[in-house]
Amino acid sequence: MLKKIHISVGDLNGISAELLLTNHNKLLKICQPFYHTSLTMLSQASQLLNIPLPNNLSVVPIKDVYKITPAKTTIKSGYHSFCSFESAVNNTLIDKNSSLLTMPISKKSWDMANIKYLGHTDYFRQNIDENVVMMLGCDKHYVMLYSDHIPLRQVPTTINEFGLIDFLYKLASYLKEKTNQIKVLGINPHAGEEGLIGDEDLVIKKAIKKVNQKIENNMFSGPFPADSYFYLAQQNSITNYTVAIYHDQGLIGVKTLYFDQSIQVSLGLPFLRTSPDHGPAFDIAYKNNKDKSSILATSYLNAINYLVC
Amino acid sequence: MLKKIHISVGDLNGISAELLLTNHNKLLKICQPFYHTSLTMLSQASQLLNIPLPNNLSVVPIKDVYKITPAKTTIKSGYHSFCSFESAVNNTLIDKNSSLLTMPISKKSWDMANIKYLGHTDYFRQNIDENVVMMLGCDKHYVMLYSDHIPLRQVPTTINEFGLIDFLYKLASYLKEKTNQIKVLGINPHAGEEGLIGDEDLVIKKAIKKVNQKIENNMFSGPFPADSYFYLAQQNSITNYTVAIYHDQGLIGVKTLYFDQSIQVSLGLPFLRTSPDHGPAFDIAYKNNKDKSSILATSYLNAINYLVC
Repeated sequence: MLKKIHISVGDLNGISAELLLTNHNKLLKICQPFYHTSLTMLSQASQLLNIPLPNNLSVVPIKDVYKITPAKTTIKSGYHSFCSFESAVNNTLIDKNSSLLTMPISKKSWDMANIKYLGHTDYFRQNIDENVVMMLGCDKHYVMLYSDHIPLRQVPTTINEFGLIDFLYKLASYLKEKTNQIKVLGINPHAGEEGLIGDEDLVIKKAIKKVNQKIENNMFSGPFPADSYFYLAQQNSITNYTVAIYHDQGLIGVKTLYFDQSIQVSLGLPFLRTSPDHGPAFDIAYKNNKDKSSILATSYLNAINYLVC
Repeated sequence: MLKKIHISVGDLNGISAELLLTNHNKLLKICQPFYHTSLTMLSQASQLLNIPLPNNLSVVPIKDVYKITPAKTTIKSGYHSFCSFESAVNNTLIDKNSSLLTMPISKKSWDMANIKYLGHTDYFRQNIDENVVMMLGCDKHYVMLYSDHIPLRQVPTTINEFGLIDFLYKLASYLKEKTNQIKVLGINPHAGEEGLIGDEDLVIKKAIKKVNQKIENNMFSGPFPADSYFYLAQQNSITNYTVAIYHDQGLIGVKTLYFDQSIQVSLGLPFLRTSPDHGPAFDIAYKNNKDKSSILATSYLNAINYLVC
């Protein structure tokens, strides 16, 4: 039987409706997709896009409907995308044989709709498990973020042996089926040159040693200088798994190489969850710009594939 | 008449002798190279490498000679590379029609030899002009570093309106012949999302506005989110000029895309100075590994070309 995937539809003023409707038949060959929205909404989108509405959509209904206003951040689109997300999460939690795919939301619309979460990951951390880790990339290279949406000035204050050991220990458990080699980047230029440029990299080095002792396996290595790292890793034939200490360090590397293929994966949830790694793309929403939307479709289909493989 | 280039030979226990000897004839077609070392040293290297010693080398003699020990950091190699550097700098300063190319040194060998400078740029800042800016990249994309070899924890403390305006104003003057469009990266994830993630990006935004007013030209724009920036910039047909706020932000982007082509350029000196953007490469020194050394030769020849164009 094909795997069930609960899909939250994201911000329907953005690109997601086009991606969902045009790729529905492809999905049916590999999974059972359940769209958490309303048929009224998808029908509206299909008319605006001039794309036929498939007659075999499984829709889990969200009561709240509204008139789509392409490319606008609105209270209504924010509220609908949040209700869709919450419904999809709850259904995935109940049905142990299903997974979750979340389409991109507008954080601003959530804020306008008075949703108290900064985004999907923040919701997971507040409601399901505070230890959720963001992993981003594609089958060539995944990065796991030690810190994510915090100001850069706070990043160095998160570096301490206990916090790092705890993080790496969790990762070892989350990823043990996927890899036995995880590389950790340094935080300072040239990974600190043995303490010449900041002392945080020495703490990272110590934490790596201790966590390897704890798990009795030399799974972790580093810290590696971040500047040349992604170029060199690109030449490996295996999938690279890399801990980035902060958001831009990991994402500059992965997005520069694999922008159009990248997905987001949440590690540490009781179910599998992925998401395409782009925003609601208001600039191309409802414009039938097939060149641009097909690039985003690659990421959407990669996110689906991660769940069914 | 071909342009004169003073070349400091770098750490002769590393890869530089191989690059200098094998590319000498190519150089002669486009410039007049002056090697600051000793014929004894180049002759030793040619024997170790089994590469014929060209009979038309212009050598500016450095008295201090030593026995090459491949791939080792030593006091003697550190001292020779420093003397070579200082001689090349002084000759370039005296001869207004010449430029400087510095081959890679080992910072550790300088340290062992009790040289009080962290590297070339540190020497320039202490002895010639404290306002020297590091620019790195190739003709597809150059990044200029607002901060360079400092610990990441110090980076946010460098962000203030006065310092940024001063830096951008200098850049406008250094680069006015090269470009009229310089983009500035944000420091926080998503360039701070209008102050939601840290307030430093608002300061950057204000500084950009003020410096554009001061120079009466909208030369600067930003701050741009750094994560997707390099992927998108890659698609431009013109040379990209980008201000990175810190070392790894700029260098992850440029090295991931253009590792083997990248050079370093010093802006703000009374002469042109470039350098290949790699280290002494002890791992391949004196091994006649042509596949690997030819990659580094691309960067060396690009650094020469920047000076003669």
